[in-house]
Amino acid sequence: MKLFTVDTIDDAREKLLKACGHPTSPLLKTKTISLDELSSYANTAGRVLAEDIYTACDIPAFRRSTVDGYAVVAVDTAAAGESIPVFLKLIGAVSMGKTADVTIHPGECAYVPTGGMIPDGADAMVMIEYAESTGDNVAVYEAVAPGAGVAELGEDLTKGALLLSKGKALRAQEIGALAAAGIITVPVYAPLTLTLISTGDELVPPQQNPRLGEVRDINTHALGALAVRRGYDVLAAHVLPDDEERLETAVREAMTASNVVAVSGGSSQGEKDLTAKIIGRIAKPGVFTHGLAVKPGKPTILGWDEESKTIITGLPGHPVSAMMVFEIILGWLIDTLFNKPLPFTVPARISCNIPGSPGRTLLLPVILRNEGESYIAEPVFGKAGMIVTLTRADGYIIIDRNKEGLKNDEPVLVNVFT
Amino acid sequence: MKLFTVDTIDDAREKLLKACGHPTSPLLKTKTISLDELSSYANTAGRVLAEDIYTACDIPAFRRSTVDGYAVVAVDTAAAGESIPVFLKLIGAVSMGKTADVTIHPGECAYVPTGGMIPDGADAMVMIEYAESTGDNVAVYEAVAPGAGVAELGEDLTKGALLLSKGKALRAQEIGALAAAGIITVPVYAPLTLTLISTGDELVPPQQNPRLGEVRDINTHALGALAVRRGYDVLAAHVLPDDEERLETAVREAMTASNVVAVSGGSSQGEKDLTAKIIGRIAKPGVFTHGLAVKPGKPTILGWDEESKTIITGLPGHPVSAMMVFEIILGWLIDTLFNKPLPFTVPARISCNIPGSPGRTLLLPVILRNEGESYIAEPVFGKAGMIVTLTRADGYIIIDRNKEGLKNDEPVLVNVFT
Repeated sequence: MKLFTVDTIDDAREKLLKACGHPTSPLLKTKTISLDELSSYANTAGRVLAEDIYTACDIPAFRRSTVDGYAVVAVDTAAAGESIPVFLKLIGAVSMGKTADVTIHPGECAYVPTGGMIPDGADAMVMIEYAESTGDNVAVYEAVAPGAGVAELGEDLTKGALLLSKGKALRAQEIGALAAAGIITVPVYAPLTLTLISTGDELVPPQQNPRLGEVRDINTHALGALAVRRGYDVLAAHVLPDDEERLETAVREAMTASNVVAVSGGSSQGEKDLTAKIIGRIAKPGVFTHGLAVKPGKPTILGWDEESKTIITGLPGHPVSAMMVFEIILGWLIDTLFNKPLPFTVPARISCNIPGSPGRTLLLPVILRNEGESYIAEPVFGKAGMIVTLTRADGYIIIDRNKEGLKNDEPVLVNVFT
Repeated sequence: MKLFTVDTIDDAREKLLKACGHPTSPLLKTKTISLDELSSYANTAGRVLAEDIYTACDIPAFRRSTVDGYAVVAVDTAAAGESIPVFLKLIGAVSMGKTADVTIHPGECAYVPTGGMIPDGADAMVMIEYAESTGDNVAVYEAVAPGAGVAELGEDLTKGALLLSKGKALRAQEIGALAAAGIITVPVYAPLTLTLISTGDELVPPQQNPRLGEVRDINTHALGALAVRRGYDVLAAHVLPDDEERLETAVREAMTASNVVAVSGGSSQGEKDLTAKIIGRIAKPGVFTHGLAVKPGKPTILGWDEESKTIITGLPGHPVSAMMVFEIILGWLIDTLFNKPLPFTVPARISCNIPGSPGRTLLLPVILRNEGESYIAEPVFGKAGMIVTLTRADGYIIIDRNKEGLKNDEPVLVNVFT
């Protein structure tokens, strides 16, 4: 009766980072991407900044009005009120996109549209809704403080300051900020390349009707979709029978082309376990993690080949287990290599008692139910192979291997499936 | 002194849905997408199921083992323990992908690998780790309950049952479940088509050095990126001066090609407000919302043209305001039309007192700080034009217009920017 000598998640992660040379991993490549590509590109994963970005200009580059109205000297309006206006002399108007060519002295004002340049001498804006122009004069019905309605030079960001940090996933506002700063290309991390291999004599492609004993291949599809979301470029996905020679050939080929090779199936301790054997034979230094102290996902193998600089993993054959391990190992890896902050979790309370799994970290799929200003996490129980069951889950919680389960209503953090 | 007659967010949303014919909106189109496209496609928005999907088969389609081990009659193992094994006669082995051609009688067992077919007569699996084979016999060191290690016929989903509901965004597990069910194409909602028009005499493209008074255009880039994430297909993005004739021509052209036309800038109450005028002239019935009771985002215009079936919106010129309005109106619209459930928010506690904005719903960007099992939401204050400031925010909270602000440590729900 042979038992695994398994690694904890933390141990396996540490070994994996060390194997692939973090923080100066040869797997990390950068590429240059343009603003236009960034705007039209929906995948967060391919948009992680690979360098710190500094600005070469003040934003705004001149004092701008944030409202439509009149540029004034603020103290002039001190006595103004809803029923008792203050009258100021209207000495001109600023045109959008032009230099303000008037100077405001006490008792004077000038029209400035939203985004227009604030004339010298003025230190505040009175909104048009609180003013009435008679042509030569403007009645001001509101007292304004210095700075009201004015975006100061460099108020958003001063020249030479850090605009965006390495590791930042570029969202719409970062893309806007880059446009504002006139930065039209940026270096981002290139997706890691991945080859998926799903092994098993029982597997048939989804379009085929399986005979009794056969099943349709799920893993190339589910893991492929997950991989793309997490920032991998899936170069190829193969479905193979449990044939040592064919699997070895496929892994060898994948090693030359990909940063990561993920073989699912064939990695448990049964009679036909080939993945560990093959990795051990063709990769140097080879397998460093023989099993994970995690449920589901125990039959996981991690290895490294120094010559081809390839991570080779054996994932469980069960689709749900394979997905969970992909998430916590290969999903985590790309975030870590790319310096990305951890994704936000949703704090919730568990809806029932959950028995622990001594010595193994439990990854438990849950449904999130919104109750006013908080969430309830309701476990979705299902056997490891139950892919349909997982479609009911909104995310999963991680119950540490040293924790004796959860008590009903205990707080948990839910990692949301996206 | 003219003030807006503004709509609340709820009113504007209701009018918008009514205008575009929800729930049978002509804007809703479906398209067929294949599993392979789904797997390699990172944008959630383009993967929302447009019909309920039922299975044509049981999943699993036969009783499968979820472990490597021996198929047994569970009661035979009742007396087995770590030090006192029960001995069963080994009568055969099931091959992966093949029909089980043995029948298990009391006192017998057969080897079955993970995913293999459970032979008739057996009702449980003993894991290989708890068994030892001598060739003819197997020593079983663990008592198993009926059903242990067995995925029953249709246990994951029975034939004819609902697999996935209309409105479901297809994640990795849904793609896996479709593969399992042999469903290789599915109907999804086609993205809504969008034309962006950014107006202003002050605007220059990002690659150009602005002169004093000019600024680089942010909105086509920031709104373009946001739109793609939210499920829009951005057909074109124009930057135009505040020229009535050119703007009218551009809006007319966009109306023939797009489901939604979003003009940013030119919609406040200043001297050059063109958008409302143009929509009023060329769209029938035209503008139905003249301003929103929201901060930022008041100068928002919503209209509909029945002939071309187009939503025409005037968004604020300030990038941050334009983005927030896009999010709560056009982002919300697509989720609603597509029957998508609301995205999850992150429950948190606000880090300071926030004054309310009487009569206007406040959209407040926040930073999320993780503190153990909960989050603190720290407001990011900045003027409406401050795009760089928004890059510091992780999400935003919505403070209802009837609420008198927030007290320090009050619970809030954070909508995360993705």
